[in-house]
Amino acid sequence: MAGTIGELGEFALIARVTARFPHSDNVILGPGDDAAIVGAPDGRVVATTDALVEGRHFRHEWSSGGDVGHKAAAQNLADIAAMGARPTALLLALAAPPELRVTWVDEFAAGFGDECAAAGVGVAGGDVSASETLTIVVTAMGDLAGRSAVRREGARPGDAVAVAGNLGLSAAGLELLQAGLGEPRACLDEHRRPRPPYEQGPEAAARGATAMLDVSDGLVQDLGHICRASGVAVDLDPAALAPGPALRAAADALAAAGRPRDPVTFLLAGGEDHALAATFPPDTALPAQWTRVGRVEAGSGVTVGGSRVSATGWDHYRRVR
Amino acid sequence: MAGTIGELGEFALIARVTARFPHSDNVILGPGDDAAIVGAPDGRVVATTDALVEGRHFRHEWSSGGDVGHKAAAQNLADIAAMGARPTALLLALAAPPELRVTWVDEFAAGFGDECAAAGVGVAGGDVSASETLTIVVTAMGDLAGRSAVRREGARPGDAVAVAGNLGLSAAGLELLQAGLGEPRACLDEHRRPRPPYEQGPEAAARGATAMLDVSDGLVQDLGHICRASGVAVDLDPAALAPGPALRAAADALAAAGRPRDPVTFLLAGGEDHALAATFPPDTALPAQWTRVGRVEAGSGVTVGGSRVSATGWDHYRRVR
Repeated sequence: MAGTIGELGEFALIARVTARFPHSDNVILGPGDDAAIVGAPDGRVVATTDALVEGRHFRHEWSSGGDVGHKAAAQNLADIAAMGARPTALLLALAAPPELRVTWVDEFAAGFGDECAAAGVGVAGGDVSASETLTIVVTAMGDLAGRSAVRREGARPGDAVAVAGNLGLSAAGLELLQAGLGEPRACLDEHRRPRPPYEQGPEAAARGATAMLDVSDGLVQDLGHICRASGVAVDLDPAALAPGPALRAAADALAAAGRPRDPVTFLLAGGEDHALAATFPPDTALPAQWTRVGRVEAGSGVTVGGSRVSATGWDHYRRVR
Repeated sequence: MAGTIGELGEFALIARVTARFPHSDNVILGPGDDAAIVGAPDGRVVATTDALVEGRHFRHEWSSGGDVGHKAAAQNLADIAAMGARPTALLLALAAPPELRVTWVDEFAAGFGDECAAAGVGVAGGDVSASETLTIVVTAMGDLAGRSAVRREGARPGDAVAVAGNLGLSAAGLELLQAGLGEPRACLDEHRRPRPPYEQGPEAAARGATAMLDVSDGLVQDLGHICRASGVAVDLDPAALAPGPALRAAADALAAAGRPRDPVTFLLAGGEDHALAATFPPDTALPAQWTRVGRVEAGSGVTVGGSRVSATGWDHYRRVR
């Protein structure tokens, strides 16, 4: 059996990878022709593309091929959900060194395929090429089912600010890995395999969300995008942002390793969990999966309990990403 | 002014690149949100993704940023045309070393944008990330306007085989570059900036083309895909495959440089011009842009004037790609 993808060859590699991908009714024509055909019943297609680059977005010593495959699908599916859409299909471009192990690609394809299956989405096609730098670029497509997309510009003073999904666990997990620590698992697991609440995107749209995005760079920074696009301010409620047991345990473990961290910082500045953050009209009954964390105000910028949060506090996380 | 994209920074780079992209009515929501929204009036979207990797698909000493931008758009737009569709929008993922010159990216964006404008297609969104290896991954979407897609499996014995666009010029251009030769320009230009006949994709579909693809790996190899998918053979007419002046001049220049090449080989085995090859029912009046080059037969495989063409003859070109 071929040990590396260079020995396996391009066509055998494509056959091997695509065999692990789920099928979906939305994929009218899958891999094998010049292009795929994907259903777009709404007459509009929501589309996004995102890259994962080895050494920049993941490291082999910290993430398995399955983890990377999962994450490559999840980060793109979260972008579709953040528009209020349901995903219809993904395309996958894989650029990889010929000496990459076939077993890594098998795990990658299984992780990617499993996350697609969990989201009910098929893989419509892709591209394989050689590169010195292992690079995965995924394109996700989605359908709005006749609804308006939930953009970043619709937040209005008085709206509730709410979050669905995890906050800060992935950033804490990355810090634990950098410190050589293996606990708490909840943080490491979320860093390796984020679990964005895909269903909550269309759900929020159906409940009248006025603005929405996925938290990829940190809650404060990403809500800042909504503030700028909508011409509003957001005040976060400190009481709603109490770190849970996993974040507190992570902070304790890091402190014991000589790297003290305020666990609230993970919540406010940690990205890559791909939680959804949205604003809702004040009288909205929020779905159970959403936690109210603040309020939209007149003005600009993000505050916590009325206090401006220091931008420099979050730069550290931006550097380590 | 920032000299490198690392000095410029991610957000300024995105603003600078997107400023050079054309707009299109099909792009309902462009760059700046979690995802773009693209019109899909047909209710289906044709979608394809393709990578260009520095050192594998292009070299800085042979191609300018503008050339690479042009080619990145063209090779994806050709795949959309080859399904019989019209392009609606592109997504662009750029992974680049921080030390890449801003001027290179400016030229790249202009070349990419110009080719999009020429094809009447907008850029809906994208992604920028850091990588040691300059990598461009483009996703193209298209619309079938109610027609069936032209796949690879519909060719029937008796059908005419025809080609629109250039054959062999790009491969000859690559050999000239490898030999350090600067003439004939037609070959070098086609290698750097292929000009696929996008309009001929929907045109062929409207005329009833039974199978179609774009010639990216060489006419014989690519027609082999139609043969396998359709369960037929193709016999090419030697009289229809006479090399034109540019290919003859390229062969002469290479021979003078101690690299003798049969110019017919460029026609039969050269890819990357992204010509369209299609099969049509026998009585079809071909559009003026199409040249009849052979006939579909019962059987399997591709022959030229009834003779099997040696596979080894084309391996050389596969290696140099």
